[in-house]
Amino acid sequence: MSERTLGIVGVGLIGGSIGMAARRAGWEVLGVDTAATLVRAMELGAIDRPAELAEAGDVDLLVLATPLSRIPELLRGLAATDAVVTDVGSAKAAVVRSAASAGVRRFVGGHPMAGSQLAGVANASPDLFRGARYLLTPTGDTLPEAYAVVTQFVRDDLGAMPTAVDPERHDLMVAALSHLPHLLAVALLQVTSEISPDALALAGPSFRDLTRVGAANPALWADILAENAGAVREVLSSFTEAMRRLDDDIDDRRAIERHFEGSGAAYEALGGILVEQSGHNADIAVLIENRPRVLAQVTTLMGSSDINILDLYMQHSDTRHAALVLTIDAASVDRALELLHGAGFHAEAGGAG
Amino acid sequence: MSERTLGIVGVGLIGGSIGMAARRAGWEVLGVDTAATLVRAMELGAIDRPAELAEAGDVDLLVLATPLSRIPELLRGLAATDAVVTDVGSAKAAVVRSAASAGVRRFVGGHPMAGSQLAGVANASPDLFRGARYLLTPTGDTLPEAYAVVTQFVRDDLGAMPTAVDPERHDLMVAALSHLPHLLAVALLQVTSEISPDALALAGPSFRDLTRVGAANPALWADILAENAGAVREVLSSFTEAMRRLDDDIDDRRAIERHFEGSGAAYEALGGILVEQSGHNADIAVLIENRPRVLAQVTTLMGSSDINILDLYMQHSDTRHAALVLTIDAASVDRALELLHGAGFHAEAGGAG
Repeated sequence: MSERTLGIVGVGLIGGSIGMAARRAGWEVLGVDTAATLVRAMELGAIDRPAELAEAGDVDLLVLATPLSRIPELLRGLAATDAVVTDVGSAKAAVVRSAASAGVRRFVGGHPMAGSQLAGVANASPDLFRGARYLLTPTGDTLPEAYAVVTQFVRDDLGAMPTAVDPERHDLMVAALSHLPHLLAVALLQVTSEISPDALALAGPSFRDLTRVGAANPALWADILAENAGAVREVLSSFTEAMRRLDDDIDDRRAIERHFEGSGAAYEALGGILVEQSGHNADIAVLIENRPRVLAQVTTLMGSSDINILDLYMQHSDTRHAALVLTIDAASVDRALELLHGAGFHAEAGGAG
Repeated sequence: MSERTLGIVGVGLIGGSIGMAARRAGWEVLGVDTAATLVRAMELGAIDRPAELAEAGDVDLLVLATPLSRIPELLRGLAATDAVVTDVGSAKAAVVRSAASAGVRRFVGGHPMAGSQLAGVANASPDLFRGARYLLTPTGDTLPEAYAVVTQFVRDDLGAMPTAVDPERHDLMVAALSHLPHLLAVALLQVTSEISPDALALAGPSFRDLTRVGAANPALWADILAENAGAVREVLSSFTEAMRRLDDDIDDRRAIERHFEGSGAAYEALGGILVEQSGHNADIAVLIENRPRVLAQVTTLMGSSDINILDLYMQHSDTRHAALVLTIDAASVDRALELLHGAGFHAEAGGAG
C-alpha cells in the first residue's frame, strides 16, 4: 500500500479535526460513525470515505475518538488488529488496562489538551491541535515502534506537542485540574443556596467565574466522574485535608499569609495562558462604561499598534461600569497605557486584586 | 447649619467615591486621612476640606471607610457623637456588636457591593455605586430615624440599591460568596502542585479562572478571613459536608446528574452579571485566532449594530485559537450571528460547555 491509512471511530470535533489534519499530511482517512455524520464529514473534508468498524482494524493507525464509555468495548473488538491504536479519552489508566486485557498489542493512550466550546464535526479544524499539549501514556509494556508512530503523528501531522506521562499520574492530574474543580463548583453552589435564596442573587462576577463549571452538562459529567472515580477520590481526599489545615489556621494571620504566598506562587506557575515570544505577559486594567462600542474602542486602539490581546475578562463593579483586564506582552504595556490614556480611559498596569 | 455635613474617615477608592457623590448631591464633605491623601482628595473633588478625627463626630452623617481592623477602635472614640454613623466593612456582625458596646447610638452597618481593581482615591468616581447593591445591617436596636438617613443617602445620593440583611446572615453570605472561594482556590493550588510540578503547567484557562483569587494579597486576606472567622468556619463546615456527599456519590451516575442539575439551576439564579432591559441575556461563542485586531473586528461588528457586549471571556483551546464567549441581550443574538457569519467567523449561540 503506497498510502498510509488512518481510521477514526467517532468523527466529532476531535475526530474530525484529526481527520482534516491527517488528510492534509497525506493520509487516506476512513471514518466510522453514523451515516449522517459521515456524509457531513466527507463534505467538510474530514474523511476520505466511510468504513465499517470491522474494516477499521486494517488501517495503519486507528484513532478511537468516541465517548470514553465506549472505548473498552471497541478495544475488545480489536484484539486481532495489527494497527497502531490510540484513543483521545480524558481518563487513561482504565483504558490502558482495557487495551492490555483485550490483547491490543500496539496500543498507546492519548489525551489532546485542546477542544472548543463548539462541538461536532461542523466545528472541526485541521489546526485544532496546533501548538497544544498532547498527553501520551506509554507504559513499560508499550511497543517502542507503536509509540514512535503515535508521537510522530501527533507532532508532525497534528502540529501538537506530545508529552509522555504515566497513566495513573495522568488521571490524578486531570482529577485535580478539571474533575475536582467541577465538584467544588457544585458544592459551593449548594452551600450558598442553602444559606438563603438571596445569597445567589448577591453573587458577583468572580463567583460566576468560579462556579461556571457547576452548570456543565449533568449526563456528560456523571460519565466523566464515574470513569475517573478512583483518581477523583484520591485527589478529593488530599483536598479535604488541605481545607482542614486552612480551617485550623483561619484566625492565625501569619499562617494564612503563608498559605496565600504559596498559592500565589503556584498560580504564577500555571499554564493555560498564552505567552508572547518575549516570554513575559502583563495585565492592564481599564475602567470602562457599559455601553455599545466601548469594547470596540479599546480593542481597536490595541490593534492599531499591533498589540495582541492574549486574554481578557471583565470585572463588573456595578451595572454600569466594569474593569476590563487585558493580558498583553509585557513589552507593550507602556505603549498600551499611552494609547488608552490618550483616548481618555482610566487604565493602569497590574493584575487581579 | 444650612448645609448637611458628611464626614469620611479613610478617603480611598470607596471613601473618595462616596465623597464625590455626596458633594454632587449638595453635602459639605470633610475627610480624615493622611495629609498626602487629603491633598489629592481635594484636588479630585472627593472632599471639601480636611478634618481631624475629633472633629469628624460633629457631622450629620459619618462614614467609616478604613480597613475593617481599625473600625472597633474608631467606634470606641465615637461614644459621644450625635452623628448617624455607618461603615463600609465586608464583615458586619462584629462591627455591629462593637458599635453597641461602644455606645454609638445612631449606628447602621453598611457594605457596598461595588469596587474596582483600581485602588485609591485617584480611581474614585461619583458613579461607583450607581445601580449597585448596597447591603445594610439594621438590628432590633437600630434607631429607625438613623436607618432612614442611611437608606436615603445610599439610594438618593449614591444611586445604589439599599438592601437590608441580618448582620449574622450577611457574614455567612459573604463567607460563601467570597471568603470560601478564596480558600478553595488556595487548597486547589496546593493539592495540584503536590501531585507533580508538571500538573500546574498543564492547567487550562478554566482552572486559571477558578484559582485566580488564590493569588490575592496575602496580608489583606489574612485580615479579611480572621475578621469573619466564625462565619467562614460555619460555611466551611457545610461545604465539607457537601463534598463528602459528592464523594459518596462519585460513581453513582444518577446521583451525580442530580447534583449537577441542582447546581445548574443555582448557577442560573446568580447575580453578578449585567442584564439588559429585556431581562434575557444569551451567550454566543466565536472561534477566533490569536492575532492582533481580531478582537477589535468582533467587537466593532457588534458596536456597528448597537449590540452591547455585557460580558465576555476567552476560552483558549491552544496557543493559536480561542473561543470568545460574548454575553449579549437575547434579542440581539440572531443579528449578532448574522454579522459574524457575514464576516467569515465560526460562531454559534450557546453558553459554557
